[in-house]
Amino acid sequence: MLEKYKEIIDEALLKYLDSLPSYTIYDPIKYMVNLGGKRFRSSLTLLASDLYGGNPNLAIKEAMAVELFHNFTLVHDDIMDQATLRRGQQTVHEKWSTNDAILSGDLLYALVNQILIESQSLNQSIHSVFHKTAIEVCEGQSLDMIFEEKNEVSEEEYLKMIKLKTAVLVACALKMGAMVGGATETDAQFLYNFGINLGIAFQIHDDILDAYPVGEKFGKKIGGDILEKKKTLMFISMLNQLSKKEKIHVNSLYESNDIKDKEIVNQIKVLYDKYGVLDLAIRRKDNYHTEAISNIMQTSLNERSKEVLVMFAENLMNRNY
Amino acid sequence: MLEKYKEIIDEALLKYLDSLPSYTIYDPIKYMVNLGGKRFRSSLTLLASDLYGGNPNLAIKEAMAVELFHNFTLVHDDIMDQATLRRGQQTVHEKWSTNDAILSGDLLYALVNQILIESQSLNQSIHSVFHKTAIEVCEGQSLDMIFEEKNEVSEEEYLKMIKLKTAVLVACALKMGAMVGGATETDAQFLYNFGINLGIAFQIHDDILDAYPVGEKFGKKIGGDILEKKKTLMFISMLNQLSKKEKIHVNSLYESNDIKDKEIVNQIKVLYDKYGVLDLAIRRKDNYHTEAISNIMQTSLNERSKEVLVMFAENLMNRNY
Repeated sequence: MLEKYKEIIDEALLKYLDSLPSYTIYDPIKYMVNLGGKRFRSSLTLLASDLYGGNPNLAIKEAMAVELFHNFTLVHDDIMDQATLRRGQQTVHEKWSTNDAILSGDLLYALVNQILIESQSLNQSIHSVFHKTAIEVCEGQSLDMIFEEKNEVSEEEYLKMIKLKTAVLVACALKMGAMVGGATETDAQFLYNFGINLGIAFQIHDDILDAYPVGEKFGKKIGGDILEKKKTLMFISMLNQLSKKEKIHVNSLYESNDIKDKEIVNQIKVLYDKYGVLDLAIRRKDNYHTEAISNIMQTSLNERSKEVLVMFAENLMNRNY
Repeated sequence: MLEKYKEIIDEALLKYLDSLPSYTIYDPIKYMVNLGGKRFRSSLTLLASDLYGGNPNLAIKEAMAVELFHNFTLVHDDIMDQATLRRGQQTVHEKWSTNDAILSGDLLYALVNQILIESQSLNQSIHSVFHKTAIEVCEGQSLDMIFEEKNEVSEEEYLKMIKLKTAVLVACALKMGAMVGGATETDAQFLYNFGINLGIAFQIHDDILDAYPVGEKFGKKIGGDILEKKKTLMFISMLNQLSKKEKIHVNSLYESNDIKDKEIVNQIKVLYDKYGVLDLAIRRKDNYHTEAISNIMQTSLNERSKEVLVMFAENLMNRNY
């Protein structure tokens, strides 16, 4: 459904990458952006601009800034997570080096700022939304790192983390597009709230797909989150319900070096089933989804436009990739 | 001479750091900024604003952005250079971790953007100067990293590198201050050029002090550049003049594990003396300095103001720290 916006963005990004200097430090940037992706955040910027102002192209710089900022965070997150693969290909720090990944990431962020300042719709409040969001995304990544080391994370803490790490950028993408399109402040805020709720639902859906994939998955390990002991809603809910004996068993699973990855995932999923954590995650996701729809309904958009946003949210929640 | 501006900046930074959240990811930022420093870049912003508009405080956000951006680059550069000390204290990645240094650096850069957008003198061209500079600083750091691995670096390449890595931020600091103060475009450009020439002279002076320190030095190793085989003007000039036999000797100095650091520095400095590289470096520095003064003379500033800038440049070139 967002296909036409993705095309606009891919074309603009391609043209932009071509315009960059040939210094070697730009190579990792070109590589990373060319790895592709759904461009879903930036498509939302164009969609919102389209719905409010009838012209997606007006918000192209904002959309590019959102997409490239997202890519910047991925380059640095991959270093911090010691990830070797991204979209089935080598991560930047693997293909080049950690130093190159740090510096090309910094450079990419600097380019983002330049793109944003070149926007036709130079508007202090649009830029404020973006820069505040960038700060929050860093805070979210920090919480994510802290939670990895922490034994106990509450559901509330987890939700706060994914709100900052993921949802605020989705919300920012929508709000910037709406503002460029000429939405009222009230409507722009409804779009922002829609993005927050949608982004949280999106992340919970991602977590579910990681443990319960549908069909073949590309470039990702099944149960990767479980193996990383990632404190997702499901993992947290399981931990909270384990008996003493099961807790010891779970700890031994992670401490042992003899147990195969597949076996760890299977055993944890037995406990997931026992404690109904999938149902809980789906319930939470549905709640955020419902909340997101209600945000749309409160806007002053016409019925057709509301329907577009609702359909988009449905599609996102039914994806199996 | 810039003492009064440094005081304004230190006070503003202190107040700003106090206003930041207490999340742990802000701790490295507070630590780094509190390590102090000459605040010379940001003082130049206030000075330029003062000379043109009569009010340094107008440019306080721009000055803070310059100073904090500089700190951001130091945090990431220290990771890349595997530096353990900064201003005689542990570097961020040593005190915390590489991940914390990457992420708190990113966060600091995001904060810089927020500060800049909050400036009263919201002006697209001022921001463009800043973001373009940020890009160039990354390019300069990239060249610096490449030159470390490269056996032959020309004087021209070295000068391009320090221009990007160091001088453009000095130039940007001056130009932004001038623009906020209301300078004409022509004058703002003269100040920019002054900054470029001053910045290059500043870096050459730094290189000289590293090999030929005056008095006691704090937190830095004497001849640190020589030990890192840094391709400074002096090192490049020496390499270009070595006999075949001396080349072999120099290579053996760096390849041996038995020779003490002090001995390496001494032996390289014997060759520095033989080939008069200190004189060459001083000559180059003086040329850039003279060029910088001529940039000032071309501005429309009154004689008193010109004198202030000339005196400032003199002080900077006569410092022994």
